[in-house]
Amino acid sequence: MATKRTSRATSATRTTPTRSKHPIPPRARINRIPATEVFPVVEGGLWPAKATEGESFPVRATVFREGHDALNVEAVLIDPDGVEHMRETMYDIAPGLDRYEAWLMPDRPGDWTFRIDTWSDPYATWTHDAAVKIAAGTDVELMLEEGARLMERAATGRVLPSRAKKTPPPQAKGQDILREAAEILRDDTASVQHRLSAGLSTKVRSVFRETPLRDLWSYTRSYPLKVDRKKALFSSWYEIFPRSYGAHRDDEGNWVSGTLRDAAEHLPRIADMGFDVIYLTPIHPIGTTFRKGRNNTLEAGPQDPGSPYGIGSKEGGHDTIHPDLGTFADFDFFISQARELDMEVALDIALQCSPDHPWVKEHPEWFTTRADGTIAYAENPPKKYQDIYPLNFDNDPEGIYRAIKDVLITWIEHGVTLFRVDNPHTKPLAFWQRIIAEINASYPDVIFLAEAFTRPAMMRTLGAIGFQQSYTYFAWRTEKDEILEYFEEVAKETAHLMRPSFWPTTHDILTAQMTTGGPAIFAIRAVLAATGSPTWGIYSGYEFVENVQRPGFEEQIDNEKYEFRPRRWDQVDQYGIAHLLTLLNSARKRHPALQQLHCITVHPTTDDRLLCFSKHVPAQFSPTGEEDTVIVVVNLDPHNEVIGSVDIDLAKLGASVNYGTGGPVLEVVDELDGQEYSWGEHNFVRLNPIERTAHVLAVKPSSRR
Amino acid sequence: MATKRTSRATSATRTTPTRSKHPIPPRARINRIPATEVFPVVEGGLWPAKATEGESFPVRATVFREGHDALNVEAVLIDPDGVEHMRETMYDIAPGLDRYEAWLMPDRPGDWTFRIDTWSDPYATWTHDAAVKIAAGTDVELMLEEGARLMERAATGRVLPSRAKKTPPPQAKGQDILREAAEILRDDTASVQHRLSAGLSTKVRSVFRETPLRDLWSYTRSYPLKVDRKKALFSSWYEIFPRSYGAHRDDEGNWVSGTLRDAAEHLPRIADMGFDVIYLTPIHPIGTTFRKGRNNTLEAGPQDPGSPYGIGSKEGGHDTIHPDLGTFADFDFFISQARELDMEVALDIALQCSPDHPWVKEHPEWFTTRADGTIAYAENPPKKYQDIYPLNFDNDPEGIYRAIKDVLITWIEHGVTLFRVDNPHTKPLAFWQRIIAEINASYPDVIFLAEAFTRPAMMRTLGAIGFQQSYTYFAWRTEKDEILEYFEEVAKETAHLMRPSFWPTTHDILTAQMTTGGPAIFAIRAVLAATGSPTWGIYSGYEFVENVQRPGFEEQIDNEKYEFRPRRWDQVDQYGIAHLLTLLNSARKRHPALQQLHCITVHPTTDDRLLCFSKHVPAQFSPTGEEDTVIVVVNLDPHNEVIGSVDIDLAKLGASVNYGTGGPVLEVVDELDGQEYSWGEHNFVRLNPIERTAHVLAVKPSSRR
Repeated sequence: MATKRTSRATSATRTTPTRSKHPIPPRARINRIPATEVFPVVEGGLWPAKATEGESFPVRATVFREGHDALNVEAVLIDPDGVEHMRETMYDIAPGLDRYEAWLMPDRPGDWTFRIDTWSDPYATWTHDAAVKIAAGTDVELMLEEGARLMERAATGRVLPSRAKKTPPPQAKGQDILREAAEILRDDTASVQHRLSAGLSTKVRSVFRETPLRDLWSYTRSYPLKVDRKKALFSSWYEIFPRSYGAHRDDEGNWVSGTLRDAAEHLPRIADMGFDVIYLTPIHPIGTTFRKGRNNTLEAGPQDPGSPYGIGSKEGGHDTIHPDLGTFADFDFFISQARELDMEVALDIALQCSPDHPWVKEHPEWFTTRADGTIAYAENPPKKYQDIYPLNFDNDPEGIYRAIKDVLITWIEHGVTLFRVDNPHTKPLAFWQRIIAEINASYPDVIFLAEAFTRPAMMRTLGAIGFQQSYTYFAWRTEKDEILEYFEEVAKETAHLMRPSFWPTTHDILTAQMTTGGPAIFAIRAVLAATGSPTWGIYSGYEFVENVQRPGFEEQIDNEKYEFRPRRWDQVDQYGIAHLLTLLNSARKRHPALQQLHCITVHPTTDDRLLCFSKHVPAQFSPTGEEDTVIVVVNLDPHNEVIGSVDIDLAKLGASVNYGTGGPVLEVVDELDGQEYSWGEHNFVRLNPIERTAHVLAVKPSSRR
Repeated sequence: MATKRTSRATSATRTTPTRSKHPIPPRARINRIPATEVFPVVEGGLWPAKATEGESFPVRATVFREGHDALNVEAVLIDPDGVEHMRETMYDIAPGLDRYEAWLMPDRPGDWTFRIDTWSDPYATWTHDAAVKIAAGTDVELMLEEGARLMERAATGRVLPSRAKKTPPPQAKGQDILREAAEILRDDTASVQHRLSAGLSTKVRSVFRETPLRDLWSYTRSYPLKVDRKKALFSSWYEIFPRSYGAHRDDEGNWVSGTLRDAAEHLPRIADMGFDVIYLTPIHPIGTTFRKGRNNTLEAGPQDPGSPYGIGSKEGGHDTIHPDLGTFADFDFFISQARELDMEVALDIALQCSPDHPWVKEHPEWFTTRADGTIAYAENPPKKYQDIYPLNFDNDPEGIYRAIKDVLITWIEHGVTLFRVDNPHTKPLAFWQRIIAEINASYPDVIFLAEAFTRPAMMRTLGAIGFQQSYTYFAWRTEKDEILEYFEEVAKETAHLMRPSFWPTTHDILTAQMTTGGPAIFAIRAVLAATGSPTWGIYSGYEFVENVQRPGFEEQIDNEKYEFRPRRWDQVDQYGIAHLLTLLNSARKRHPALQQLHCITVHPTTDDRLLCFSKHVPAQFSPTGEEDTVIVVVNLDPHNEVIGSVDIDLAKLGASVNYGTGGPVLEVVDELDGQEYSWGEHNFVRLNPIERTAHVLAVKPSSRR
């Protein structure tokens, strides 16, 4: 807007020397045809909204004008080079409220922008007025002549008023079409209907659509979009404690740690399940001072390996590998093995130190010193965490910033492309905003996942200032209504601020609902997580339905944080969960609808335990060029069969529907067992914990029907 | 924020020469303790939010920080000279959602700003931690020593970190209090409880409240507020067609127009009813070409005076007075008479021309010329308004702008201080934004009222870009729920964008509900308008319960627009409406609660026809220094008695409540008949169209009870 207004003012000054000074600064001047309340805009445009390469997202604005003449609205997407990438007509989605929407899709990462163009549409005004007035026999010749003049003007591309921004006129062929229409409009030997039709023909409409006559063209300022690579939105994480892989007791009964090389042996199994991110909990040396024992006890025994979150010992800190796990060469090997399997490696970043961390001696100013001269350990009075020294980011922010930047770059240079950031909400947001921006400036592919389980404002804002992915409340949404409400919230209300990651469990989270219901509830939650969000994650051992809580805590007993947890991987198939994870990831990979966040529709069912939603990508925005629709139905009851009906709202579903003689027909195939069904508006469903607890129904493309 | 961040960066650069370049531009950097989602902010701060001298308004922000330390939030109001006028602590109004609120009040018109200050509150952190830890017997001496050090630091005003913005330390007396507390905190001969209490004493708290230690002090950018004079919010309009006053038939039966001097004779009566704005429909010469006759017929008879909205004849245009009404001397007399009665004069501005307007010949380029060379009249196909030529603001925007500015200044120089703008939504918003700003730059007291009855986005935006007052949907809100919802919407959701004006009828609006119900419905709607909004208006003749519609139209038959409507003012008291208007305006003048917009509370009743709400001003923001509360109860049924109960939510009412032995007691007096009642939580009410159809209950100040 600023640019345009300025140039307009300049030209007006030339032609109208007596123009009085405008009392409103240019950027605050309302447009000739205003677009307000633009979405997605974060903090008035100070921070970019989130978007992802290859995913369409909705743009909205409130647009209206004076009087009765027609207006037109376009959403314009501008690429990082400043080139107009896409221009989509916006449509009124809330008649009476003047709310317009279009969907845009960037095709590569970078700093994009979008804006809203508004203009007076003289052709739409004429088609409306001419049709009404000629039908009423009013001003017939006048309307036809005005139509002819409009065709002639459109052929030259001459917009009104003459000082408005211009666009090129139509190609020669389009000009001919318009001039011919003008001739017929003026041909008083022809019938009025024939003459009018010449101005309303498909050909003429098409010329106006291709090269509209944008009278009074104005546009908003450009709003920033940070477009991330596809994996920022669509990824399947698998979390491991590498030391557990290959951990065993030696002949004397002493624990021997697993290593990075042991863990690397499991990568093919994990890749086979379809996971594309392997997430390592911290791999650094672990302190011994106040080391925690099994089940978070205060006294560690000699066999207790300590929590990998108690980072730092005389062997090193955040830029060091625990000697028990191996060397940087082993780490590089792990990375290379993962890459061969098309997996990326995520590393845990827990910015805290054990009392034995080298920084404690080298940089006591990076911690808080108490009145008694000791360094403050973590506490939330009266709780104490004496094995952890939190960093104090305010004493020497520059020094600490450089040190952490160096740590991150160390791992990035060794091939880490994702960081799972532990408790980012206990560090200043200003720190995260700066370091993520600076890392991404040099390494634009690096993705930060915020592990913040805290209040909504902090969660949203961590996303808004830079984190590409965020843990969510998914694990605590257990009832049908709250699950669906949350799915819609993350897809529609907060998607421009944070990209959700759904985890049924983590090493820190085992909710009450997981403790009963056996394999069925693990299956139910996996289906919900894998289909409810394009990014999801599984904590190693999920396959074994590990479901016993430490008494009084919402986490597993014998938490892997404090001990080695070797698992019987030869028996991994016993509950069918590993197979289910494989099927889910396979469906996710083959269905663009499951790879995007925005287009979710909830469908009613006849039972409170029966949940149904669908995801959809229209052909225009599908990487395959074909529309894609997946309908998910889940029986939330892990104990009982539920029989009921699912009512599909076909208008909202998005999919092209075959209207057979017996009503609408959707041919669907269940991605979990290959069963095929014909679905319509009302569908009988029977789901139970034994045979099948969910449907993941892919709608067959209409072209194949 | 920008200022502070810049200065911080500068000082940091000096002390830390190796600081790496910050990748985020200063204004986009998130604060150390962030405040986001600030309200009221219009279009990201591009346009000022509305506020009024002497009215408090709510400011909100989402504020949170990392970790567990305490934060503090203040809303800061800055006057047009850049001086901090008010600083109010904000409180969490939605625990869990981190939403903070404070109320601010400007004391004069002008361009004000506000911002949100956030800081780390070391005293609040210490009081919390010390109380918890000492109670648990943990770190007792350490906590006491840290308290002592905090007292000492507060005495010097030394904030942390040292580069943070500073505030002056406490006065000498405050310093003494803090140092004395430090001594006791360290006195190991005293009991722990005694020592801790020294740090928590009222005196110490008071010093911290007066001169807080604002560690990590940061603040948002300043958001603009346009503060208008009090009448922009609180005014009582009375609309007249001056030509009807004194209009009569002469001896031959020919109509003789009333004059401005005739109308001036009625000013005392109107002032006696308590109205403070006299609004004149257009007083300019009226065209004869295509003049409309009685009841909007196409053919005017020789006796038909024409619509005052068909402006302009050979006698002049918008800057001219209709010769039948008088001269500028007569107009000046009218103004002076009004002023003597403490009334201001509002003039109708209808920016359109009759075909006979001088501009049509002088400036054909200010209109739209059709293909046949004629000037386009107003139409909304197939409807035609051949007596009206709309201005075309796009051909010569500068020329037309200057002409209209001259018109406005002409009337302002003659004493007009308010303009009722006819159909502003049929002219470009850019025009209004500019002309209102430019007029207000020279004449800051001039108030523009937008007569836009159209879709919400246009209505809101006309307010947002400059109109001080707006007509509303009030006349069409007739059911209890929709009335109360609308009252809350204008008070809480859109008050920063538009100031509502409630009119039960106008010369263009007579809704269906007014046509039955006789005087009762006129009374009901007057009570709702006068108490529901600080600005309201009455169209002359309301006193006579003129309630017959022109068939098929939502307006009066024999619309005064097209004919003289002399009224029998000697019989004005026959329905009691004039008396009611007087009582309502009197209550409005005496009760600050009815002069403000924001503080409205809805109370439940036992009947759908029984509506109750209250308005409240706390003592802090009351011009009298005393709190003021008014409870309004209306029986919406103009035909039947309603007996029911009104449940007053005392917590939300705001008023100080006397708790008697039988429960809470509010002594109230009905402003409409002087009856006194003792009200509590549940109140019996009997209202009917004969005795009383509403209560306007003033709560007596607690000091007088």
